[in-house]
This record gives sequence, structure tokens and C-alpha cells, in this order.
Amino acid sequence: MKYSEMTREQLIAEYEAVKEKYEELQGMGLKLDMSRGKPNKEQLDLSMGMVDALSGSDLVGEEGIDCRNYGVLDGIIEAKRLLSAMIECPVDQIIIYGNSSLNVMYDTVARSMTHGVMGSTPWAKLDKVKFLCPVPGYDRHFAITEFFGIEMINVPMTAEGPDMDMVEELVSKDESIKGIWCVPKYSNPSGITYSDETVRRFAALKPAAKDFRIYWDNAYCIHHLYEDRQDHILEILHECEKAGNPDMVFKFCSTSKVTFPGSGIAAIAASKANLDFIKKQLTIQTIGHDKINQLRHVKFFGDFDGMLEHMKKHAAVIRPKFETVLDALDTELAPLGIAEWTRPNGGYFISLDTPKGCAKRVVSLCKDAGVVMTGAGATYPYGIDPNDSNIRIAPTFPSTEELKQACVVLTTCVKLAGLEKLLAETNV
Amino acid sequence: MKYSEMTREQLIAEYEAVKEKYEELQGMGLKLDMSRGKPNKEQLDLSMGMVDALSGSDLVGEEGIDCRNYGVLDGIIEAKRLLSAMIECPVDQIIIYGNSSLNVMYDTVARSMTHGVMGSTPWAKLDKVKFLCPVPGYDRHFAITEFFGIEMINVPMTAEGPDMDMVEELVSKDESIKGIWCVPKYSNPSGITYSDETVRRFAALKPAAKDFRIYWDNAYCIHHLYEDRQDHILEILHECEKAGNPDMVFKFCSTSKVTFPGSGIAAIAASKANLDFIKKQLTIQTIGHDKINQLRHVKFFGDFDGMLEHMKKHAAVIRPKFETVLDALDTELAPLGIAEWTRPNGGYFISLDTPKGCAKRVVSLCKDAGVVMTGAGATYPYGIDPNDSNIRIAPTFPSTEELKQACVVLTTCVKLAGLEKLLAETNV
Repeated sequence: MKYSEMTREQLIAEYEAVKEKYEELQGMGLKLDMSRGKPNKEQLDLSMGMVDALSGSDLVGEEGIDCRNYGVLDGIIEAKRLLSAMIECPVDQIIIYGNSSLNVMYDTVARSMTHGVMGSTPWAKLDKVKFLCPVPGYDRHFAITEFFGIEMINVPMTAEGPDMDMVEELVSKDESIKGIWCVPKYSNPSGITYSDETVRRFAALKPAAKDFRIYWDNAYCIHHLYEDRQDHILEILHECEKAGNPDMVFKFCSTSKVTFPGSGIAAIAASKANLDFIKKQLTIQTIGHDKINQLRHVKFFGDFDGMLEHMKKHAAVIRPKFETVLDALDTELAPLGIAEWTRPNGGYFISLDTPKGCAKRVVSLCKDAGVVMTGAGATYPYGIDPNDSNIRIAPTFPSTEELKQACVVLTTCVKLAGLEKLLAETNV
Repeated sequence: MKYSEMTREQLIAEYEAVKEKYEELQGMGLKLDMSRGKPNKEQLDLSMGMVDALSGSDLVGEEGIDCRNYGVLDGIIEAKRLLSAMIECPVDQIIIYGNSSLNVMYDTVARSMTHGVMGSTPWAKLDKVKFLCPVPGYDRHFAITEFFGIEMINVPMTAEGPDMDMVEELVSKDESIKGIWCVPKYSNPSGITYSDETVRRFAALKPAAKDFRIYWDNAYCIHHLYEDRQDHILEILHECEKAGNPDMVFKFCSTSKVTFPGSGIAAIAASKANLDFIKKQLTIQTIGHDKINQLRHVKFFGDFDGMLEHMKKHAAVIRPKFETVLDALDTELAPLGIAEWTRPNGGYFISLDTPKGCAKRVVSLCKDAGVVMTGAGATYPYGIDPNDSNIRIAPTFPSTEELKQACVVLTTCVKLAGLEKLLAETNV
């Protein structure tokens, strides 16, 4: 029975029952964590072949590059080939970086602050710089723009991606809007993949700022959960070219959630004009990235097909975890009509919307019962969810057993917070 | 016989002989490179044990950290222990970075531009920012400051380090001077190690700018050439503390020329107050560096003693190369009194001073005879050597046989350029 259809007496009875259940859970001394999108041990074990992937190799690349020495600023050709297949761009439109695409994004914004974008005024010299932030979104994106004092404007996500009417209007009339953060596929946290229509409208944007760029963080491009139910997304670089906006997008990807987080390789893909500008910085910043690790990845996978096969193994490990969470939400919450959640085909998160004004309370209740959730508000710029309703669920790291327990806690807390709210509202 | 003691007729005869020799060398179709401080193949082979250093390991660090996953922003404890021994600081005064200390230095300057230093005004908001640059020095340091539009002021090197009278005077009266680039041990390119007096005067500086920092790039801290003839340097962090300036220095080091350039690990050491400020950026910039590579280094060396033993093997490989160059300079140039050079006990370079106004000509002559030298002027900010006399010799990369040939070319070119100059001067 839906809570909204209950009488006050029924709500009170339900509240007492849920509260008792919650107190029982509190007594169990749980210590569970559904807060971060971290691979679990079983996933990490899948890549242990990385450790000896270069055993017996002379560490010389296919173009005769001694990967042990200085040189090759933008990556060895075999690594470019692998990651350009992953990111769906030509090999001459990619630069291979170090271990972290987040760091590449940080550098991209930092460089724009001090050196502008392809000849534009350095943003640090402007009175105001703004970014559009589809919400809910990725907290670490927002942390970068906040760190540089860039004003963030929320753009609501729909089932097709960001609200493009709003994006089009804002970028076309406000020259201080210099970028938009996007996780276009299996987005963080909602798991939504942008529709073809959305991608085409992105490519056709007419921004007032010449140095406006789309920050296209394709973090989950090959991170499917199912073999028979996969999202596909139009390739944005190519769409931008077709639309006469070849320089308008930076694409980012990494192998952080393919091999080992922190020990992967990352890349940026963009137009040649953008890459030429980026290389002017890169040549000052470093003598080159870790080519041995690039070679290690190539040897481990063989080719992109090998990488896709590897991703199927990841999916087999984490699919049951997603389903555990969805089952719990379906069973415990769906009949009550007090929450909504996404059913992603890939990525690392499920996005849960509690009743308005309840997210902080739910996270706090979870914490007091030993379950760490991502902080409420974390999926919004400045940590402020105007509805206080969104909670990001990260199912990958805990064991399935832990996850089951954590979901009992989570669903109990959503009920409790929802009942508290309903009872307060009806107590007039 | 010294050229300065020759008659014009003798100089002409010598010029004809040297010119003939030069043309003969030109005809040999040589293709040699003494331009960059790159380890040679034999040195790289010393570290091949790195490839399998983690074989059989579960990649879990001594504190139970799964190095395969996200986390640990500032480095695993065993890597901190190793590099803090190398950089001579306590383990709690170090952050382990990725593969490049140059990148750490770049980030340090970039962060100061956008966020200042421990609360100071971001440099990008100041009209003028200046750095002191001991000359000759490291071209890639100068490239960073030039990239950010920081004005560079030459400070001459003496046999004891930078001219400290000049440093003291400049930093005490000019608030726009925010830093000084130092390679304090086996400096690039002169091989000089700063004297105790110099280090103490550095530590006791009274800069007008509160956000003035000494950029202490200890790139060659354990890169001795001899076992019985090693330079020692006072530890600057400790000296700064004693002098009441605990926050005035950033130390940098890496294993780039210990294991594999591009695949090493780097570090910054500084006061806790500095590190706390740096971590505010780091936590936005990345989720963490490559901990597996940190662990790989620890397993390969065992401990710091293992690293020092390893450096002896490097020395055994490159010492004969340095001696080949020095022998050639001693034999071919010393009697002529037209050039001076350094005799370093470590590091990667020999610094050669040709007659004033001859360095560009020498490098150009070398190039036309198939020998690439570091560009004349590269050791000075903006690539401008006011005397046009300094040439950096990098003996490590070529084979000893190639080096011998290259030295014949180099010394012949120094003679030729010197003679051209003398003949032009006496042709009055």
C-alpha cells in the first residue's frame, strides 16, 4: 500500500514498525560502505595478469621506441590505437596521459585559467567564468570548477540527458559560460545515456563564448552491465565536425575501471587544433608519461577486442550487485510510492530520489546504522541539492552479502525518513 | 701553445689545419647526439628487474593498502620511507607523486598562479612576478617560468653555488620575486654542489615576499660518479627550520635517472604547513598516483641501501663516459687556453665555456658535422646567454665510441670558432 494512501493511524503504526526495525539494525554494529564507485577485489583480481604482462619483453614499442627512456610526449602508437578505439576517435586525435583522467580534466581547466583556450583570454583575467553542471552529476567535476572559483549553474537531467533547451539558451546568450560537464554514457550517478537528439543538439550549439568547450567525460564508455542490453551513443567529435564546430569538445577516458584504478592510463581526444594548443603546455609540463604502463596495457589486452572481453568479466562480477540493490528497492520501496530510482545498463551507480527534503536525513540515518552513503548533496554543485532528495548508490565495492544488509538499512532509512516527513506534514 | 700567444701567421696556419680537419669530419657522415641528459641502454638494462619486481605479489602494501584500488593521496608508507631517505627528510614531510618531478614543479608554479602560496594573493592577479635563475641552469625550469609569464632574472653561479650577495639583496628588497630555481647538488649543467655556507645563507634569507619559495630540485642527490669523491650538501629543510624559515623551501626529487625515466616516481618534500596547502589542491586534482609503481620501486630496491648500491652500477657505466669527454677536453683544448669546463663528481652534465661569442657558432659547426649539442643559450632564461659562451655537454647517452668521435668534432669546432674569432679580432 502506498504511504500516500494510508491514514494517519496506519502511518503511525508503520512508523512504529519501521522504527523498531531501524533500531534493531542499529544494534547490529554494521560497518558497510556504498559511497564510492570503487571496483571490488574480485574485479581487481581480473587484471592480475597486468603484473607479469611485460615479463620477458625488452620494453621496446612497435615503432622502435625504447619505452624505458625519456621521450614520446603524447603516447606510444599502440596505446593510442587501443584508447582511440575505446574513445572512438582517430589515432591522430588523441593524447595518452598518465594514470588519471580526472587529472587531465583538472589540467584542462587549470590551463584555461592561466592560458585561455586556443588563444582566448586566460579565464583568471575575466571577472566571471561559469560552467553548466547537469544535475545530479559527478562531485569531482564540480570540485574542480569550484576550486578555480568558477560559478556553477545547475541544468536538470532528463531521461535523454541534460535539458537541452536550457543549455542552448544559456550558452548562446552568456559569454561567461565556458564549459559544461558531461558524463554522456551511463552517467554518474543516474546511469542515463544521452540520446542521439541530445548529442546532435550539443554538436550544434552556438555558444556566445568562442572558448566554450563541452567536457565530455566518457568514463563509462565500455562499462556495460549486460550483453543484450547496451546503450550506444553518437560520437560527439564527429558530430561536432559535421555541425561545423570541430573544436568545441574535449573527450576524456581512462582505464581506471578497466584495469587498476590509480594505475591505469588516461587520454584526451579533441580536434587537431585543440591538441596542438594542449601540446604547447604539455611540452613544458612533463617530458612524457609512463610509456611502460602504456605498453603493459597493450600487452595485457592485445587489442580492443581483448579489452571488450575483459569488460564482460567485470560485468559478470558487478551485475549481480546492481541487481541486488534494484531487487531491494523494488521489493521494499516500490509498493510504497515514496522513492524513484534508475535502472542503468552500465556504469557504476544507481541514482535514488527520496521524498523531497529527506536525502540528508536518510544518509544520516544510514550512517548511524553503520552504512556510509555518498553525502546527500554531493551530486550537486556546492553540495547543495535544492530538493534534498538525490542519493547516489555505489553498489560495486561491497560483497553481495554486505550489499544485501546495506540495502536493508538503506530502504529502512528511506521509509523512516519518508514517514517522519509524512507524519510531520499531516500533523497540522 | 696557447692561441693567445700565437702570432697572426701561426693562427692562420692553425686555422687552415683545423679547417681541414673539420672538413674531413664533415665528410664522415656522423650522426651523434650529446644534447640531452638521457641514460643509455646499458643503464636502463640495470633496472630490468623492475619488470618482474611484483611477480607473485598480491599488491597489498605493508599497511594493508590494496595498491590496485583508489585511495592514498600522498603515497604508500613504504614509498615515502624510500624517497624520504633519498631526499633526506622525515617521512611525514613528503608527498609521493607520479612519474615526473618536472610535472610536480610545473604544478607548484601553476597552483601559485591560480591559488597563491599558503594564503597569498594568486600570482595571476599580480602585475609582476619574478624568479631568480642561477645561470647557467636547467632549460626546463626556465621554460616553466617563461610559460607562466614570470620574469626571470639571471644570477651568476660561482664555484659555491649562486652569487648569494646578489640573491640576498634582490629577495630582500623586491616583493615581486617569488622564487629561485636551484639544482643544488651536481647542478645542471655545471656539476657544482652548493657549499655549506651557500645553503646556510639560503636558509637565512629574509625575502620581502612572504610567498617566496626556494625551488630546490635535488635531481641528482644520489647520482655520484665516484665512490671516493662524493659531494655532500647540507639538508635545506632542516637548515630553514633552524633559521626560522620552515616554510621557505620546496624540495623535489624523482627516480627518473635511478630506474626508468618516464616510469619512475617523484616526490615533493616541504614543511607540514606547505604540504597541507598542497594537499588541498591534490585532493581536487587526482584520486591518487600510481601506487603499484610505488610498490614496484620498493620491491625492486628493498630499501635505500639497495638504491645506493644500484646507483654504483649507474656510476660504473657513465663514469668512463665523463672521463672520455674530460680527456678529450684536457688533451685537445687545455693547452690552447681558449675554453674552460667543469669536472663534476656526479650528475649528468659537463659545462663548457667557449670564448665569448663563440657558443652558437660551435653548436652550429657541430651540427653541420653531424653532432647535436644542446642549443647554445639553452642554459639561460629566454635562451639568451649574454656571453654566448656556455655549452652543456651530456655524455651519458652515446656509446663511449660515439662519444670519442663526438668529442673530436666538438673540440675541433671549439678550436675553429675560437680561431675565427681571434683572426677577426687581430684583423684590424
